[in-house]
Amino acid sequence: MRGEFELIARYFAPLAAGTDGAFGLLDDAAVIPPLPGRHLVYTSDTIASGVHYLPDDPADDVARKLLRVNLSDLAAMGARPEGYLLNTAFQPDVQEDWIAGFAAGLAGDQDSYAVRLWGGDTTRTHGATVLSLTAVGSVPQGRCLRRAGARTGDNIYVSGTIGDAAFGLKAAQGELSDALDEPALATLIDRYRRPRPRVALGQGLLERGLATAALDISDGLVADLAHLCAASGVAAEVTAAAVPLSTPVQRLVEGDSRALSTALTAGDDYELVFAVPPGRQDAVLALARELDLPLTRIGQLRAGSGVAVRGPDGELLETGAAGWQHF
Amino acid sequence: MRGEFELIARYFAPLAAGTDGAFGLLDDAAVIPPLPGRHLVYTSDTIASGVHYLPDDPADDVARKLLRVNLSDLAAMGARPEGYLLNTAFQPDVQEDWIAGFAAGLAGDQDSYAVRLWGGDTTRTHGATVLSLTAVGSVPQGRCLRRAGARTGDNIYVSGTIGDAAFGLKAAQGELSDALDEPALATLIDRYRRPRPRVALGQGLLERGLATAALDISDGLVADLAHLCAASGVAAEVTAAAVPLSTPVQRLVEGDSRALSTALTAGDDYELVFAVPPGRQDAVLALARELDLPLTRIGQLRAGSGVAVRGPDGELLETGAAGWQHF
Repeated sequence: MRGEFELIARYFAPLAAGTDGAFGLLDDAAVIPPLPGRHLVYTSDTIASGVHYLPDDPADDVARKLLRVNLSDLAAMGARPEGYLLNTAFQPDVQEDWIAGFAAGLAGDQDSYAVRLWGGDTTRTHGATVLSLTAVGSVPQGRCLRRAGARTGDNIYVSGTIGDAAFGLKAAQGELSDALDEPALATLIDRYRRPRPRVALGQGLLERGLATAALDISDGLVADLAHLCAASGVAAEVTAAAVPLSTPVQRLVEGDSRALSTALTAGDDYELVFAVPPGRQDAVLALARELDLPLTRIGQLRAGSGVAVRGPDGELLETGAAGWQHF
Repeated sequence: MRGEFELIARYFAPLAAGTDGAFGLLDDAAVIPPLPGRHLVYTSDTIASGVHYLPDDPADDVARKLLRVNLSDLAAMGARPEGYLLNTAFQPDVQEDWIAGFAAGLAGDQDSYAVRLWGGDTTRTHGATVLSLTAVGSVPQGRCLRRAGARTGDNIYVSGTIGDAAFGLKAAQGELSDALDEPALATLIDRYRRPRPRVALGQGLLERGLATAALDISDGLVADLAHLCAASGVAAEVTAAAVPLSTPVQRLVEGDSRALSTALTAGDDYELVFAVPPGRQDAVLALARELDLPLTRIGQLRAGSGVAVRGPDGELLETGAAGWQHF
């Protein structure tokens, strides 16, 4: 294993190349010029081994997940990614191979999402690996998507498909091998390990003034939609049959009705849920086509509070707990 | 123990009060307006229980240390603190009292250093607590202190006293009880647990154009001065007798000559070491008086590379390893 400074020079400094003010990670801090006409957007997320990812998940996927869950928060604000700071506390038995794989995952995603490393810290812990990342984005001055702002009558949309990550976790733990074939399992595991932050969608919604409120689904669709409702002072009525499900998840739901509740309430989808004023449906569909990303109307906002999910016969479905919490 | 959202609302949201764009920590990210005429400065540090602080250190001191080591990096660039993001991964047996104490430490320091919480993440780990913080500061456009820029002939200065934290760690571990009395031990432990980031000094050096290069001492005086020399392409000659020592450390050095080497090479001082062109001594002394902070000339930069420390008879002292590394 190389020393701390050698590890930084070999694996992390290349990720800072192209940003003059990062000084090759050789100074105490990075100095970044302001962006004319734009405000800065800051978010920060931590993932811990055995809590937010499986200890045997590939290192490059762990890195992608760490970066992407942060980019997903930027997407929820309609922000464009600019740079990030990385904090690693590696467990005692970490191997240099793992660090190399981790850095390779970041390098790949930096190109995909046009974002660069600005700084950070490389340390050890006596316990399990803990990884934190602070992402910096930007929005046009005075504008951003928020959880507050949605109004009664707005339609509720989600991007992509819902519930894949929850079943991907089960698949990665070997639970679904009887129910699905290998390609379906691989698809779900990929969705769990490599969330797709909807950064282009967030920026598109903001630029076109389409969404009155938005957030990303990290705690589960029902719980996160409840956050939007609480912040906006409205209620949501969701039609379960309208919620977009991938083919593997459809198959699971057909075999076990409880699977639908899992899809609606489990976290880690990192899709956006957003509210759109009535009459803008065509503009949403146009954006969906441009981005080649399904944007599906799943319900409507009403006066009141809370989230109601209606089944095929109009009955209220029991969706259980209000999403994932760490405490 | 409260739930995650209740913990955030009770202990962390109050730290974000007064920053409109932090949205009470209730949104996905913070939105911060640019600062006219200023560039932004970013730094990030992690501290892990049992590595960077002792598991039984008081929670409020752990919080102060986390914030202050980051502010020290801002100080080294001459930056003014603006805001910060906090990432906590608490160990399984954390008590709410500990979190309350941790937040209280941050609250106290926010007032001392005029900085506010902008966002973060509150999570758990299966291992030992790991805490990360990303600090954002600002400098006048186009100006900052760096490690590079020092020139042959510049005088080398340090702020405060050197080595207190290293012996404070030993004192906290009960190692120095025979050598020092209670008040001296308490002084050293305080210096270990509560570093004083020299933010006013950094800004003063930058505003007055006094320092050609600077950094904060986190790896040890000799190792960090070596970083400055490497970045600037110069060598340093330090007079051991000139290095400012607190009264307790002086007493230890008198009793054991190896203690001087510890003072010069151990980390965690969080004082600034900086280079000043010859002829600016009076301006440095004036700044020291204004800040009520000792600024002491400890040597001079020469052509060449590396750091030489000379003892009382002009002999080269052996200063041992090149400072603390995590790997």
